[in-house]
Amino acid sequence: MDPLPLDCGRALKDVNIRYETAGTLNAERSNAVLITHALSGDAHVCGYHTPEDRKPGWWDAMIGPGKYIDTDKYFVICSNIIGSCSGSTGPRSIDPDTGKPYNLNFPVITVRDMVRAQKALIDHLGIKKLLSVVGGSMGGMQVLEWAVEYPESIDCAIPIATAGQFSPQNIAFDWVAREAIKADPAFKNGDYSTDEPPSRGLGAARMLAHITYLSEETMSRKFGRNLQNKESYDYDFNYDFAVESYLEHQGKRFVERFDADSYFYITRATDYFDLSAHADGDLIKTFALTNAAFLVVSFSSDWLFPTWQSKRLVEAMLKNKLPVSFCEIQSSYGHDAFLLEVDILGRMIRDFLRHRQEGLKHV
Amino acid sequence: MDPLPLDCGRALKDVNIRYETAGTLNAERSNAVLITHALSGDAHVCGYHTPEDRKPGWWDAMIGPGKYIDTDKYFVICSNIIGSCSGSTGPRSIDPDTGKPYNLNFPVITVRDMVRAQKALIDHLGIKKLLSVVGGSMGGMQVLEWAVEYPESIDCAIPIATAGQFSPQNIAFDWVAREAIKADPAFKNGDYSTDEPPSRGLGAARMLAHITYLSEETMSRKFGRNLQNKESYDYDFNYDFAVESYLEHQGKRFVERFDADSYFYITRATDYFDLSAHADGDLIKTFALTNAAFLVVSFSSDWLFPTWQSKRLVEAMLKNKLPVSFCEIQSSYGHDAFLLEVDILGRMIRDFLRHRQEGLKHV
Repeated sequence: MDPLPLDCGRALKDVNIRYETAGTLNAERSNAVLITHALSGDAHVCGYHTPEDRKPGWWDAMIGPGKYIDTDKYFVICSNIIGSCSGSTGPRSIDPDTGKPYNLNFPVITVRDMVRAQKALIDHLGIKKLLSVVGGSMGGMQVLEWAVEYPESIDCAIPIATAGQFSPQNIAFDWVAREAIKADPAFKNGDYSTDEPPSRGLGAARMLAHITYLSEETMSRKFGRNLQNKESYDYDFNYDFAVESYLEHQGKRFVERFDADSYFYITRATDYFDLSAHADGDLIKTFALTNAAFLVVSFSSDWLFPTWQSKRLVEAMLKNKLPVSFCEIQSSYGHDAFLLEVDILGRMIRDFLRHRQEGLKHV
Repeated sequence: MDPLPLDCGRALKDVNIRYETAGTLNAERSNAVLITHALSGDAHVCGYHTPEDRKPGWWDAMIGPGKYIDTDKYFVICSNIIGSCSGSTGPRSIDPDTGKPYNLNFPVITVRDMVRAQKALIDHLGIKKLLSVVGGSMGGMQVLEWAVEYPESIDCAIPIATAGQFSPQNIAFDWVAREAIKADPAFKNGDYSTDEPPSRGLGAARMLAHITYLSEETMSRKFGRNLQNKESYDYDFNYDFAVESYLEHQGKRFVERFDADSYFYITRATDYFDLSAHADGDLIKTFALTNAAFLVVSFSSDWLFPTWQSKRLVEAMLKNKLPVSFCEIQSSYGHDAFLLEVDILGRMIRDFLRHRQEGLKHV
């Protein structure tokens, strides 16, 4: 599928999709599990590229030989979304029509566009039907799009810590994040050079987002009002508090690995996400479009994607008599719990996948 | 008290305090009520300055002849805090030592410093004992400081939608807000000219704060995912959603009336606020320092100063056998409820003040 048609009406030429796989596709091609990543994720989902790597892939605790998503059993695929800055075609790619980077001339993409590109990858890999699509946060939005857009191509779907639509509060946070980037003169309306990126603005945007990933409880327990390496206030505007120092660190680390234009595109895709658009705003009718089985998971202290949003999905699935398992995991970690509560979440995913795969064998 | 000693160890010369009064001080000087304002408030608390004024003072629904805080009965005083940009001495004032504006050479002030300046004003007005100090949000912090620092100078205290200390989550939001201002090149480390203020950065900071003043419920009901004067997405980064347009408007209005350096100083004062510092971090011992009566009010959907923080104050007051009334008002308005739920809050304040004043007459 090249050019790739997009929801905005434009099309993307010469699309590249960075992806990684782990495990082996079985003869029936029935053991493939697609992992969809969140806002700042990438294709490197598990294992090490070289023995020197400081860290393994971003969900290595979940995925690997003998792990919860067991690569001795499953063929795991993780593809970097379009719009990203981690190998797939994105705003910093070269526009074949001009020979220059797109920057903000890149078309505005949607979560459905990301999934459309993933479907082309799965076709390319010769896989007719995925056993499952699994992802958290914006990854969960992709999972939901897969279930509704390509129901014949998946058996089951595992949307984690996500929602059927992005809430106005979350749209508002994204707006402020992009305003902070725009306020940085280095941004140059997206036309910055790679050597002089808008680090200050992107750092502020990431810090803001990071607050929404944590819970008030985690922040209080982890940092409280502790001061950072000092006994009393400095009475200035540098950091006094441990939580300030932590945020600074998070912002700095992020700008080393992420791109401001990509941040614009990916946050806009989440703003635009509303699954019920498949049926003119009717979520129940939307789930009439699929016959997938679902495992829906939320976390009690996640205030970015609170449990009631998952329940709304589950209710619409049940109205359509779809097979649904739902669990709210008690956790103090906030939205980040989908990456941190690996053991309880992992057991749930493992058992659900095993159950689905055994069911398929019996058919 | 000139120069005014400050918690940071410095002192402030030639301090000016902008204040307004309404009603008449009685012969016994026993009917004075001090109103303390929140972050962006000012001394103009009720009534109109001229018949042409577009709007009355910021708490006019609460205060005036025959209103809940009845200026036919009470002598109401509202003073603009030091550090502000609304008439009292602040970072944009002229430093008498240099003849130039302080900007970021202004000393970092605390809530206690603000209250110290207010005490000097009350002394200046010849009032030995206030009937009450009443305020919400950062105004509530000032109320608490009054009760603990000058217990002999107040009869009762009404802290609303506030806390005994600023939470790490709130410190984190302030940090990001200041980062957004710093990212604006117009800020010039505080040395901007009044003609070219860092509007973009200050606007972003205000928008961020504004999100925290609303509840998720209010945002969903007020805006939902409604588009602003359009039928479908524009697929760009200008505003599509009503909530984005609303935030932009709030940001723009704010930069017309507020100053970035003041925003630095006042947010830092809230970061530093920890009432328990009066007794080495022990909140119960802190309230042993006062004999004031309290009416503590919180709002159910306020996530900036959630009810549990008010309850923590109430528990510490009760351990000291102080007379305390506490109410959590059921409201969907979030933190802004302290300005919006005027009727239920007003009746509570009216009855509490009447009760206290009658008690004083019987002594």
